[in-house]
Amino acid sequence: MAKKDFKNDSNVYIGKKRSINYVLAAMVILNEDRSVRLLARGKSISRAVDVAEILRNNFIKGANYGEVLIDSEEITNRDGSKSNVSSMEIEILPPKK
Amino acid sequence: MAKKDFKNDSNVYIGKKRSINYVLAAMVILNEDRSVRLLARGKSISRAVDVAEILRNNFIKGANYGEVLIDSEEITNRDGSKSNVSSMEIEILPPKK
Repeated sequence: MAKKDFKNDSNVYIGKKRSINYVLAAMVILNEDRSVRLLARGKSISRAVDVAEILRNNFIKGANYGEVLIDSEEITNRDGSKSNVSSMEIEILPPKK
Repeated sequence: MAKKDFKNDSNVYIGKKRSINYVLAAMVILNEDRSVRLLARGKSISRAVDVAEILRNNFIKGANYGEVLIDSEEITNRDGSKSNVSSMEIEILPPKK
């Protein structure tokens, strides 16, 4: 399953696993009628978009997009140098009842 | 250079080239004080986000995000079967004067 932040358990961090893992993690949160945030960096961003679309089209009918944020983060490489990496945050709102 | 749609020349389609190609194509439009839309599908989505961030942070200071849309498109494979692919549209607004 996807990692979760203990402080904010409505975040799902998108990594290199298959999309369905993150879809399931997000569904658990949406089914509790809470909004979920998909967080991704770099090449995982396209997977985050896939996860969001799979959720909306195939699993949680009526779920909508909330905020979609694009930003950059500075990461420190192993050799001490720094690189910028793009990051994205996609909020998905549970269906209205 | 990136392909342009003749009907709407403020679109930049993000493909598999290096990000800087698309950054330059978008800069031409932004420097004419027009907003630009970056369009990408599938794995190119993360490149579109990179292009947007490079533009905003390194080339066009003060440029802001407009609409950020996420959707799916159905594409027909060579064997006639159909697949869904995620798509993304990022609008970048020129700096306010």
